[in-house]
Amino acid sequence: MDSFSFTPVAFVRTPYAATAEVPKGCGAAHVAEGVIEVLSELEPGLADIEGFSHLFVIWVFDRSPGVELYGTAPTDDRPHGVFATRSPKRPNPIGLTVVELLRREGTTLHVRGVDMLDGTPVLDIKPYLTSVDPQKLRRGWLAEAEARRQA
Amino acid sequence: MDSFSFTPVAFVRTPYAATAEVPKGCGAAHVAEGVIEVLSELEPGLADIEGFSHLFVIWVFDRSPGVELYGTAPTDDRPHGVFATRSPKRPNPIGLTVVELLRREGTTLHVRGVDMLDGTPVLDIKPYLTSVDPQKLRRGWLAEAEARRQA
Repeated sequence: MDSFSFTPVAFVRTPYAATAEVPKGCGAAHVAEGVIEVLSELEPGLADIEGFSHLFVIWVFDRSPGVELYGTAPTDDRPHGVFATRSPKRPNPIGLTVVELLRREGTTLHVRGVDMLDGTPVLDIKPYLTSVDPQKLRRGWLAEAEARRQA
Repeated sequence: MDSFSFTPVAFVRTPYAATAEVPKGCGAAHVAEGVIEVLSELEPGLADIEGFSHLFVIWVFDRSPGVELYGTAPTDDRPHGVFATRSPKRPNPIGLTVVELLRREGTTLHVRGVDMLDGTPVLDIKPYLTSVDPQKLRRGWLAEAEARRQA
């Protein structure tokens, strides 16, 4: 099967040197500030990005611990399929984080809400355009796990 | 610089054989139904996914027309940086789509909201967990372009 190869467009500086330091689980507040350093030759690609309050960051779990198709997330004591979780142990170790864009200085994006390790390579950055209506959102096992904890 | 190589976990069947058929621009309704066919050996990774109403699909613009760091999107007549748009002409041709999960049959996910070409390779599938509060969302040039059209 064809494979697809990508090189980073940016690297993220975050407060987290080790996985254990990243807040996880129900109600984990992702409010840490970080910095996305975009490669200087890509600066034209950032034009007008400062008009968006939130960005999607697509990144690589470059220190990922392998693949686990069915396992237990920190948010629950029951196992789930990896595609129903944000586990790093994915067939393709790709992460996705929504961050708030605080300000841009050239190729430096100051953001809030990072949950990746310091030095993480970024593959893409996209504007966050629309949200799913909360009334229409179902959150499966995660909502159930939260309800059990609150009970 | 390190590069990262990924092989597809799934392929999407959509109604779109060519880019020109995909609805684009302000107010384009992404309501087309499609099917994500996950590789059979990955079926354990889909456990409990049916509890989520919406999924993130990370995919490859495998018929991408090259890179344009600064160009004009179909939603506006003014150019913008590629990281401020959903243009396929990205340094890494990675797409991100939020789909509604209608039902699952084994490794087949029936979804609504596809905007990729038929046969597009999928790199990852993740649950959509939370939305950004619409009150806090700013949509930069896209909101301005919409306002100009309505004026």
